[in-house]
Amino acid sequence: MNKYELTATDGLAKRARFHTVHGTIETPVFMNVGTAAAIKGGLSAYDLEQIGTQVELSNTYHLHVRPGDEVVRDMGGVRKFMAWNGPVLTDSGGFQVFSLAGLRRIKEEGVHFNSHIDGRPIFMGPEESMQIQSNLASTIAMAFDECPSSVAEESYIRESVDRTTRWLERCRRKMDELNAAEGTLNPHQMLFGINQGGIYPQIRREHARQIAQMDMDGFAIGGLAVGETHEQMYEILEETVPLLPKDKPTYLMGVGTPVNILEGVARGVDFFDCVYPSRNGRHGHVYTNHGKMNMLNARFERDERPLDMTCGCPVCRRYTRSYIHHLFKAKEMLAMRLCVMHNLYFYNHMMEEIREAIEAGRYEEYKRAKIAGMEAGED
Amino acid sequence: MNKYELTATDGLAKRARFHTVHGTIETPVFMNVGTAAAIKGGLSAYDLEQIGTQVELSNTYHLHVRPGDEVVRDMGGVRKFMAWNGPVLTDSGGFQVFSLAGLRRIKEEGVHFNSHIDGRPIFMGPEESMQIQSNLASTIAMAFDECPSSVAEESYIRESVDRTTRWLERCRRKMDELNAAEGTLNPHQMLFGINQGGIYPQIRREHARQIAQMDMDGFAIGGLAVGETHEQMYEILEETVPLLPKDKPTYLMGVGTPVNILEGVARGVDFFDCVYPSRNGRHGHVYTNHGKMNMLNARFERDERPLDMTCGCPVCRRYTRSYIHHLFKAKEMLAMRLCVMHNLYFYNHMMEEIREAIEAGRYEEYKRAKIAGMEAGED
Repeated sequence: MNKYELTATDGLAKRARFHTVHGTIETPVFMNVGTAAAIKGGLSAYDLEQIGTQVELSNTYHLHVRPGDEVVRDMGGVRKFMAWNGPVLTDSGGFQVFSLAGLRRIKEEGVHFNSHIDGRPIFMGPEESMQIQSNLASTIAMAFDECPSSVAEESYIRESVDRTTRWLERCRRKMDELNAAEGTLNPHQMLFGINQGGIYPQIRREHARQIAQMDMDGFAIGGLAVGETHEQMYEILEETVPLLPKDKPTYLMGVGTPVNILEGVARGVDFFDCVYPSRNGRHGHVYTNHGKMNMLNARFERDERPLDMTCGCPVCRRYTRSYIHHLFKAKEMLAMRLCVMHNLYFYNHMMEEIREAIEAGRYEEYKRAKIAGMEAGED
Repeated sequence: MNKYELTATDGLAKRARFHTVHGTIETPVFMNVGTAAAIKGGLSAYDLEQIGTQVELSNTYHLHVRPGDEVVRDMGGVRKFMAWNGPVLTDSGGFQVFSLAGLRRIKEEGVHFNSHIDGRPIFMGPEESMQIQSNLASTIAMAFDECPSSVAEESYIRESVDRTTRWLERCRRKMDELNAAEGTLNPHQMLFGINQGGIYPQIRREHARQIAQMDMDGFAIGGLAVGETHEQMYEILEETVPLLPKDKPTYLMGVGTPVNILEGVARGVDFFDCVYPSRNGRHGHVYTNHGKMNMLNARFERDERPLDMTCGCPVCRRYTRSYIHHLFKAKEMLAMRLCVMHNLYFYNHMMEEIREAIEAGRYEEYKRAKIAGMEAGED
């Protein structure tokens, strides 16, 4: 049986089951971001079970600098460490090396940079990233790539993408070696390749064709949602997704708003992740089927309704807007936690609706209605 | 049937059931402090159900200044507001007026002071405190008292205690009136009187005899754990508790460490409350049967054990010391939440052990072993 089992399509939208050693992932799926092996806002693994989380996403760079991937390995890997029983995807550290770390030098072997915590020099290349991710023992490892600015010069992007392809070959080799090695915590660790190419359709297409030939468990589209317009992003998806293997999952990295996800699914994407729901929740911005609300707003002082009248999440089943507004004013941590829980449930539940709509062959209709509702606003 | 149903005694230690309109409280009991209608550290009402919380304690002064007790009344009272179905005790605001608020003038009618939030002038006397607590609709209201420094001059303490007695009469009258009024959210709201007298045994005894004559649902001992030694506190308990009615609960306010509670029970106390378990938890200090641990300590980096090997709390059932240590280093909110949950469970569970020990007639033996264990330390 193929690991990626396509069960329905509707236009370009795909409904599938992705079988992993840590459980089956129902796609399209939104992965919940827990950078340092914890979802920010005080959510526990019990909470994740309550809000329909399928896949947790942790960060290779962050766990490498703290507590150290060898500590995580000695504790049984990131899943055991954070007591999360489902699948975990680790990103490669590439994005953080290029966005967070201090002064860096990119060479063919990899990147020299300084830790954003204590400034100590670190070297990370494809082999180092694979070794770290093998120590973390995630379900799915991501290839180590370069993430140049999406609006960089075309000549630089071309050079960078060629290097990313060479790095991908090295990632595959190293991961095969690690999976075969004695004592490896997860010898079935999967590897996803990453398509790059900025906003240049031709480079994106060439790169997609190249990596599609390589033996990967899935393919991601990286370097988007970093400054280009939504229309440019959708265009890149239309150029790139059709060139990636149909029998493997497609992952749009770091995306995005509910509308971005709805449009991504319509263009054939299976996996998404984004910090928006947790980051917005911590600031009191909550998602509803009638648009976003700012819970700091005084109009909620005596509002006895749940955050979203149509929501079945643990927060909406128990708490009022009035109470959550009060918690923010009183600077109680519970304020953030309740809003993060609600927002992640909103995303996870939307993915469930998406899967049902694809199965029912009414995805376009569902998408239109969902977007119209969110744009209409309420109260 | 008496509201306070004594089911067992062992020496002076009492085991009882206290029947309230919001459920029966098994005593001795530790009330979990949620000052602004939320337990600090991001705990939800779901969490309280998981850790054996019986009574939640909220703060009249804090809820009066934010969000305002009329908002809480309009939302159905503090229990509905915070979605907690069990009993709630509200303190009277007296302690906060004397410890938190700015410049204050004490008069026979009550106290003029300034809000610690925005400096606005507030007046609170016995009638105002009862009105606010009636708006909050807690299960048990506390009398409005003056809390002078426990080491104040004897002449001042005597004057202050006389005023507190006059205030108690006014509290009783006002509460009866409010409970009989139309539209009162909880017409069965109980009122506990408070014994004061600093560290002067004679004033304490006289005051205890006086208030014991008054029609109260329970009696508290206030003004302790504010600077005197533990020995002085135990002595005051020995002087005071025997003079309070045997058929009503006794509440030692703001106390204390596990040892303080064990000693308080041995002297006939039924109710306790304290911010220690939640405040210490937020700072990474956790209680165990082998003493306290500081989770910031580097020795926990690879410690795969739960916080307490003998603990059955949701945190110890799922998480390791290594992970919790990491969460503190990474400044993840979940760190605080897990430690607060564990600490409150530790207290709540100790009360359960205490109740069982009294029922089995082996309270002294239990107390000695528990204290010896905590003092022995471990790893």
